[in-house]
Amino acid sequence: MRKTIDFLLNDWLDVASLAGHARYSEHSRETFESVLDTCQRIADEKFAPFNRLVDAQEPRLENGVVILPQCAYDAARAYVDSGMLAATQDYDVGGMQLPYVIELAANAFFAKAGVGLGGGGMLTVGNANLLMVHGTPTQKSVFAQQEIDGKWFGTMCLSEPQAGSSLSDILTRATPDGDGFAQDALGPRYRLTGNKMWISNGEHDMSGNIVHLVLAKIPAADGKLVPGVRGISLFIVPKLLVNAAGELTGERNDVALAGLNHKMGYRGLPNTLLNFGEGRFPVGGRDGAVGYLVGKPGDGLKCMFHMMNEARIGVGLGAVGIGYAGYEASLDYARNRKQGRPPTPAGKDPASPPVSIIEHADVKRMLLAQKSYVEGGLALELYCGRLVDEARTGPGESVPAIKALLEILTPIAKSWPSEWCLEANNLAIQVHGGYGYTRDFPVEQYWRDNRLNMIHEGTHGIQGLDLLGRKVLMDDGRALRLLAQRIDQTAQLAGEHAELQDGSAAVAGALQSLLDATRAAWSTGQPEEALANATPYLQAFGHVVVAWLWLDVARAAVAAAAGKDDGFLRGKVQAARYFFEFELPKIDAWLAVVAARNATCREMQDGWFES
Amino acid sequence: MRKTIDFLLNDWLDVASLAGHARYSEHSRETFESVLDTCQRIADEKFAPFNRLVDAQEPRLENGVVILPQCAYDAARAYVDSGMLAATQDYDVGGMQLPYVIELAANAFFAKAGVGLGGGGMLTVGNANLLMVHGTPTQKSVFAQQEIDGKWFGTMCLSEPQAGSSLSDILTRATPDGDGFAQDALGPRYRLTGNKMWISNGEHDMSGNIVHLVLAKIPAADGKLVPGVRGISLFIVPKLLVNAAGELTGERNDVALAGLNHKMGYRGLPNTLLNFGEGRFPVGGRDGAVGYLVGKPGDGLKCMFHMMNEARIGVGLGAVGIGYAGYEASLDYARNRKQGRPPTPAGKDPASPPVSIIEHADVKRMLLAQKSYVEGGLALELYCGRLVDEARTGPGESVPAIKALLEILTPIAKSWPSEWCLEANNLAIQVHGGYGYTRDFPVEQYWRDNRLNMIHEGTHGIQGLDLLGRKVLMDDGRALRLLAQRIDQTAQLAGEHAELQDGSAAVAGALQSLLDATRAAWSTGQPEEALANATPYLQAFGHVVVAWLWLDVARAAVAAAAGKDDGFLRGKVQAARYFFEFELPKIDAWLAVVAARNATCREMQDGWFES
Repeated sequence: MRKTIDFLLNDWLDVASLAGHARYSEHSRETFESVLDTCQRIADEKFAPFNRLVDAQEPRLENGVVILPQCAYDAARAYVDSGMLAATQDYDVGGMQLPYVIELAANAFFAKAGVGLGGGGMLTVGNANLLMVHGTPTQKSVFAQQEIDGKWFGTMCLSEPQAGSSLSDILTRATPDGDGFAQDALGPRYRLTGNKMWISNGEHDMSGNIVHLVLAKIPAADGKLVPGVRGISLFIVPKLLVNAAGELTGERNDVALAGLNHKMGYRGLPNTLLNFGEGRFPVGGRDGAVGYLVGKPGDGLKCMFHMMNEARIGVGLGAVGIGYAGYEASLDYARNRKQGRPPTPAGKDPASPPVSIIEHADVKRMLLAQKSYVEGGLALELYCGRLVDEARTGPGESVPAIKALLEILTPIAKSWPSEWCLEANNLAIQVHGGYGYTRDFPVEQYWRDNRLNMIHEGTHGIQGLDLLGRKVLMDDGRALRLLAQRIDQTAQLAGEHAELQDGSAAVAGALQSLLDATRAAWSTGQPEEALANATPYLQAFGHVVVAWLWLDVARAAVAAAAGKDDGFLRGKVQAARYFFEFELPKIDAWLAVVAARNATCREMQDGWFES
Repeated sequence: MRKTIDFLLNDWLDVASLAGHARYSEHSRETFESVLDTCQRIADEKFAPFNRLVDAQEPRLENGVVILPQCAYDAARAYVDSGMLAATQDYDVGGMQLPYVIELAANAFFAKAGVGLGGGGMLTVGNANLLMVHGTPTQKSVFAQQEIDGKWFGTMCLSEPQAGSSLSDILTRATPDGDGFAQDALGPRYRLTGNKMWISNGEHDMSGNIVHLVLAKIPAADGKLVPGVRGISLFIVPKLLVNAAGELTGERNDVALAGLNHKMGYRGLPNTLLNFGEGRFPVGGRDGAVGYLVGKPGDGLKCMFHMMNEARIGVGLGAVGIGYAGYEASLDYARNRKQGRPPTPAGKDPASPPVSIIEHADVKRMLLAQKSYVEGGLALELYCGRLVDEARTGPGESVPAIKALLEILTPIAKSWPSEWCLEANNLAIQVHGGYGYTRDFPVEQYWRDNRLNMIHEGTHGIQGLDLLGRKVLMDDGRALRLLAQRIDQTAQLAGEHAELQDGSAAVAGALQSLLDATRAAWSTGQPEEALANATPYLQAFGHVVVAWLWLDVARAAVAAAAGKDDGFLRGKVQAARYFFEFELPKIDAWLAVVAARNATCREMQDGWFES
């Protein structure tokens, strides 16, 4: 993976040029590479050797305490020591002021080595980042700073048992904590009551405190909750209460662990159901978890989206990392496992020795598919990361366009690797044959681990609705137009290379099909017609985006090869070809139903499912 | 599932007409239904409640003994008591002389309720069936009869650690056991030495003995093994030695358990590595497992294929059963889980109560896809079962054609449900959201259990080579022509119904694409060119076959409805529509690479995979 990361960062995305932005002026290709070296080493030493162990010894409860194996603590500590929690923060809060794209690339090593290990570092980073944008100075210095320093870890508490995809239905309430509630130094003080489900890292003792960011509703004067997302506000709810100097007061907040979820995979990270304010740990003699408002009342979801967009890129990156792990494991297996003989015009000679299975066309197909998925996914995430950096530090006039591109690419960055790097893991098992189905090889765990990614941070269905129902429409379709311009531009540039002409034409044609289908889907202006096939649309959109990026990566590979024969670069071009020839044509079936506003699914009736 | 089985058997396949065949003359729709009633009840009572338990308490070794939970014994006993081990056997050996299609339908209940439970009944049946065809009278009365009676269970021992897909490379040797070896009443007696891998039910104490059917090579005069499959012979190797009267002699055979495989799923059935003849249990003071030749030397694979073809239909049926379990679980969940609101022209009213998620178009899509996969797969297996019965008992002149059809459909019967009912399980998880990823719901286990089916009994890759490399070529393409005739005929018949005209046209067009691609693949006559994309070919072929069967099922549903509004029958037509509109168009992408003899995969080089 490292060689590909270096190639993508340097030869494709030219990250060294970021040093021309004032914020990154002390950085260079060398400082970036030294960060990657460090993270790769820590991942190899503290994560990879323990990935199987945290699967076998999943988190468990003993007397209300979450028990984790020692390696979970060690990996969390190693992640803190790597400095990654402060990777992109300002120097003056102890950060490294690294570009986001470098943080992402470095995190790929951890995701590949042990996606559930490291103490939920990416969660803590996202939590701190949100507070650095939306928090008060005191909230930053108390909560965000101690997360950046690795002393406290963070969570995001959105879902409730009855409300996962539909956040508008959350029931957690926040009521002002007494008359002087608005004067608390940590922010307007509320008491929260309610249940939060699927909270990763919701309870543990890997850090000195846990900073929960919690969505809740402030009741109206009549005590009723405002329906819809407009009623949602955001609160900091620390597990242990603190003062304005950031010191623990010694008092426990009224947040109680109600139980652990027993997952099929991704077991390094405890996943919890939390009760807020049920009175298990009364504060000042009263039930209710103490929480501090972040931002304005009713702005909760807006604030949280700041964290969710990063989290969605992070989920995509995690899926890529697991996909990569399976790819490398099955490549290794295919090179060493000897069996069978390829067909030849003269038939097969059973007396000849068996070959490495990588010699078989169908095994090559399974490896090439994996390569196209995991490297394509990696390119997608790093491209988005590079856009984030441009949006943050690039020339001001370009920022709105970059932000629009990011908006439209985020559902793809989340969903595409979740689906296709899972399929990569499926193929990694298949390359192993029966051995892949056993726990003696790592690939079955990768497949189980990766299955989570199509579910959390917005399911596939939700991403599709976001894409077709919001992102392609916003600003009168501006984001889609900007994206189409970039794709056209790449197709033109790549088309100048003889060996990429077919791919260029394929990508340009696919883009046209996508635009046509988008228009047809909305041609009647009826959301229920347009959105009935939002998931096939999401799938087609993702394949077009990744084909485009593969075309651009192949162009960079051809340029880097400069006519010389280089196996590594040749492999990029071949994987791109695979994607154009075997994958991209799949979009026709998906887009056909979108363009036809096919009603077969939405017209299906409950009673007809009788089986 | 029961209502659909009844519909397929009665309204579609007209199984009652089988009573017109002499062999089934004592049967009727009523006797068939009473078998189904019994099996459904046993599956509900002895299998389903324990499916999770056998996953959590997987087989383990204690002092060399395989420990299984009590429910495994109970389910095995219940399966024996159901009479299913003797379902299709002659009355005079204690059988029920049932059609195979009824045996399959009855087994669907067990596969759905707990695929790893029941003591490997389908293995024992296949084992006994093979011996009833290829065994000597004594081998039948001693071994097959006690399997039919449920006293002894059977295995099939093909793979070795170094040879799974490539049986020609097996190293297990069989040498004549002394000078009088040919005079043993149980068959020519050999001593076997070697290792067998992936042996389901290879060691347990659920039955009084274990009858291993073992592939091994008889060395030539120079002591060398004959390369290739021609050197393979078949042997009966009982775990406990027996005499010609079928009584245990009290002596243990030299077959030793070397270890259990720890699988990701499918854990009810112990899976073993067995050592034959290593001297752990010497017989008569000498190392070597005693085995009795079945059939002629060198005919081993031919004999075994008799068992493997049935086993492949059985694997497909197992995949269908697990797929069905997930479909019903997610249907139930979708009906009861309330969340969100569908889009309307007026937007969404957050104050309105949330709806059952089955009201959402994307959830309907996921349920409809599952329905089309699991009911399509069920139709496929039952159709093949019906063909088996025609081949066995139908008018003599039709038998060769029926057998040719079965030959070409077997790789589809095995591979298609393995891939698409697994995808059904994937969708069942997705319908459940986060809950589907936890062990509090059954769907994650179904997905893990089902993953085995693309691997055992010939991997997907092997099925593709069998189909494109042998089955479509044999007898100058006769089987494919016969299949095409049936498909055309169905398309014509269905086309007479207005609501099935689009589907008819789609199926007819898909058939033409398939035939064209088949011709193009072989147009250069080079196996390495034709077979490079055998797996995409297998996928396309499977989708065409299932689309054809859906068309025929929909035709039967329209006929059965006779113009009346019937939700159950309407659902069949809608699922068929879904398959024509959402699934069948996928074949274009698969067939494009087949027809082009696309060389991207086979030209890929090891060195280019560098990552």
